[in-house]
Amino acid sequence: MKVVCAPDSFKESMTAVEAAQAMARGVAAVAPDAQVVQLPMADGGEGTCATLAAAMDGELVRVATCDALGRDLEAHIAMAGTTAIIEAATACGLEHLTPTERDPRIATSRGVADLILAALDRGATEIVLGIGGTATNDAGAGMLTGLGARFLDEDGAQLPAGGAALVDLARIDTADLDPRLANLTVRIASDVDNPLLGADGASAVYGPQKGADSHGVEELDRALTRWAEVTEDSTGKAVRLSPGAGAAGGLGAAFLAFFNATLAPGAELVMDTVGFDEALVGADLVLTGEGSLDAQSAAGKVPTRVAARAHGVDTIIFAGHVDPQLSRTPPPGARAVVPIVAGVGDLETALTHGAANLERATAMALRLWLAHPPVPHT
Amino acid sequence: MKVVCAPDSFKESMTAVEAAQAMARGVAAVAPDAQVVQLPMADGGEGTCATLAAAMDGELVRVATCDALGRDLEAHIAMAGTTAIIEAATACGLEHLTPTERDPRIATSRGVADLILAALDRGATEIVLGIGGTATNDAGAGMLTGLGARFLDEDGAQLPAGGAALVDLARIDTADLDPRLANLTVRIASDVDNPLLGADGASAVYGPQKGADSHGVEELDRALTRWAEVTEDSTGKAVRLSPGAGAAGGLGAAFLAFFNATLAPGAELVMDTVGFDEALVGADLVLTGEGSLDAQSAAGKVPTRVAARAHGVDTIIFAGHVDPQLSRTPPPGARAVVPIVAGVGDLETALTHGAANLERATAMALRLWLAHPPVPHT
Repeated sequence: MKVVCAPDSFKESMTAVEAAQAMARGVAAVAPDAQVVQLPMADGGEGTCATLAAAMDGELVRVATCDALGRDLEAHIAMAGTTAIIEAATACGLEHLTPTERDPRIATSRGVADLILAALDRGATEIVLGIGGTATNDAGAGMLTGLGARFLDEDGAQLPAGGAALVDLARIDTADLDPRLANLTVRIASDVDNPLLGADGASAVYGPQKGADSHGVEELDRALTRWAEVTEDSTGKAVRLSPGAGAAGGLGAAFLAFFNATLAPGAELVMDTVGFDEALVGADLVLTGEGSLDAQSAAGKVPTRVAARAHGVDTIIFAGHVDPQLSRTPPPGARAVVPIVAGVGDLETALTHGAANLERATAMALRLWLAHPPVPHT
Repeated sequence: MKVVCAPDSFKESMTAVEAAQAMARGVAAVAPDAQVVQLPMADGGEGTCATLAAAMDGELVRVATCDALGRDLEAHIAMAGTTAIIEAATACGLEHLTPTERDPRIATSRGVADLILAALDRGATEIVLGIGGTATNDAGAGMLTGLGARFLDEDGAQLPAGGAALVDLARIDTADLDPRLANLTVRIASDVDNPLLGADGASAVYGPQKGADSHGVEELDRALTRWAEVTEDSTGKAVRLSPGAGAAGGLGAAFLAFFNATLAPGAELVMDTVGFDEALVGADLVLTGEGSLDAQSAAGKVPTRVAARAHGVDTIIFAGHVDPQLSRTPPPGARAVVPIVAGVGDLETALTHGAANLERATAMALRLWLAHPPVPHT
């Protein structure tokens, strides 16, 4: 019997690697002869870099960069062969700013350039990019500047950092853009379909949570409109309506316009990257899960995507907290959704005992699943 | 597919009847064509009467009786055909006394006589008796007095109520004992193996929790020793060493000496009474469970007994709280022990949502159990 353990992290309790290990122990307790493949997953958000580095036998590389306000910061990328895994938010993420520091009019994506340059310096020809969680709304102007482009006003003067300044954009000079970008493929993990501009655009939808008031949102939407006009003139690419162009304050649009880039849902991209389909060959059972599974948010989550992509291989989803609705009707492809707690208890205890609970629940579920011998492969 | 739902009550959350209903709903949600037999169980303790009445299509009968201090009380028995189900504690139980009222030296089992007489008046030829939880230590002297016997001292005067007075016992006059007892069979549900006397006896082991101090324990053990001497002379039966004679403050010994009575573990007796073995015929799966399942107390509990007696029919145990040890190593005969909670939460919420949780957990477990088609019956 072959079992693939492909969980997301259980937030605040276990990393995806630890969760896969706990599942593997649970399987071994019931079916010691089973072949167990540990394939920790991620959704393109926080932790994606570390998870993929572990899954792909890569290494974490420290990179000196800056936060969204330009302050020095040490971040990291992961390198696995010629593939680099980068999380934009490790540089210019909201997580590095206090609530009062948040201001998307001046926040810059420049730190992302340092991460990309570090990857290029190590021979990367492909970047898997987690794009979410940035504090920026500058349509990647900071990043492109860091990579050699120049954002100029009518007088040929370079614009200051931040999205608001782009209202004065007249020309983008890409003559000195790093030439290695021409041979670089960027695969962006994004669960966001928003266009760049307008009511569903980056500024209107994500500006407020980054600190913009309604006036700031209008100001930024005007500035990004200007950016789009100049960019489309400059690159010949019409990206403003592309789904996902509005991701990460327009960073998505910058990649689509100036890079050889594609967007895909984070969980799918991670599955592609770690070789999920290949691991599935010959598998009898897939185990996946995450900390909390809500009916509303289930669509883009790792367990739902894993179950849907298991192509008929039975999939069991484990979760620290299970929405009753999902419990009644498991997501497509899932055999069942199994809560991992063993009784009444508070959150702190549940988080502390996450690995033991997951191991126990895995063993329990496997005992039931094996009640009748699986039909042999044909 | 035939599924037998045979749970105990989930204490403070669901009666056994409600638990069986919740299980049946969970089965129906996943396997709407399954034949579901609801067979609510009990262990001879609190609720046995109501559960058996429901399981056997019997009726509850109110009986005017008295508590362990002789105060008026309305209790009940259940009648199913010529079988009566009686819980001794509904009359002389600890539950009717405040902690300061507890005194096993004077507490009387007389109320049990009223319950037996009510059963006899309704034509009972068999009594299933839940014996546990009494406040008494009078070796059934009160009960036997209520049924017509007379406990006399050397001067031929009747002894006062309570165990302590038995130290002066000289003779038991059974001439006026209710003649219907000769045709009555009593099957006693008892998970207690204690003998009547000594360090493992009724007074030493159960006296303290009924309010006896160390002096009171000695006093009662002496009194019951006297009772045993007189009883053995009177009946020719040596009951003091019989396992279970020490149950319910020696009430067990009284039944063994003066009745046509047998003792059996409560869960087994209930299974006998409701026809568990008959219900098992043709069954593919047995579902059982209870509120809390500890490794220490598991031996005599309904789920453990049900699993052991399912004779190879797969059994799944559900519990509100599962001991990790039992979860790792399910009791003999059990496929798995499944916790019913769906996530972190306090006890009150878990108790309130018990039925919904059990229904959901049943459906989840059944989905897993049905992952591969069961082998058809041969």
